Amino acid sequence: MATIFSKIIDREIPAYIVAEDDQYIAFLDINPLKQGHSLVVPKKEVDYVFDLDHQSLAGLFSFSKRVAKAIESVIDCNRIGVAVMGLEVPHAHVHLIPINNMDDMNFANMKLSFGKEEMEAVASKIRQTFR
Amino acid sequence: MATIFSKIIDREIPAYIVAEDDQYIAFLDINPLKQGHSLVVPKKEVDYVFDLDHQSLAGLFSFSKRVAKAIESVIDCNRIGVAVMGLEVPHAHVHLIPINNMDDMNFANMKLSFGKEEMEAVASKIRQTFR
Repeated sequence: MATIFSKIIDREIPAYIVAEDDQYIAFLDINPLKQGHSLVVPKKEVDYVFDLDHQSLAGLFSFSKRVAKAIESVIDCNRIGVAVMGLEVPHAHVHLIPINNMDDMNFANMKLSFGKEEMEAVASKIRQTFR
Repeated sequence: MATIFSKIIDREIPAYIVAEDDQYIAFLDINPLKQGHSLVVPKKEVDYVFDLDHQSLAGLFSFSKRVAKAIESVIDCNRIGVAVMGLEVPHAHVHLIPINNMDDMNFANMKLSFGKEEMEAVASKIRQTFR
């Protein structure tokens, strides 16, 4: 069965997409820890990030770097933190989170919620900055 | 000034090293969230992981995959989680953490402490499994 991320890739489910190429896609986390918090996903449906072959893994983090640089230029933060856990959706995904301190990456923190217009505005700015 | 990680690389400070090649080194975190929690560090002293060039970044995660597979075969866990924050030591480092649930990657959790013999025994097992 297709994962929720594959449904986003196939445009069966809407998402605030911030970057995409033929192998990877990035979109805003719908329950972000910080504004701009994005997920980077390989289009190939692999559960565990370390089961990606070396080339796909390298590509995932190269793509993540480009997304991180775009987020940084849009969201005021010290840097972009990286987290991969993958216990919830069986489709590898990299969390990119704008952080100013360690606690900004605490997944036990209350998730934020932004309106549709604000999410689209942030996604649009990141998309325009993505190189 | 050399970072604490460069001092480990130069053998000025001891560490429980689990893997090493000419570009990267991995060693046990001295204040682990879980037994086997390791740090993977590029030998080149770069503060922010996304300031590594694409090749070094790709190499860092390829090396991390090999370390993760070795940790997995030694430590009982669901998978290896990944975290990069880098707000404490200005030298890029990837946390590899054996996890069974999301909370295992909560950096606000109390850090564990193991004796020298136990740390060396775990490091030795991971080193022997590293391919």
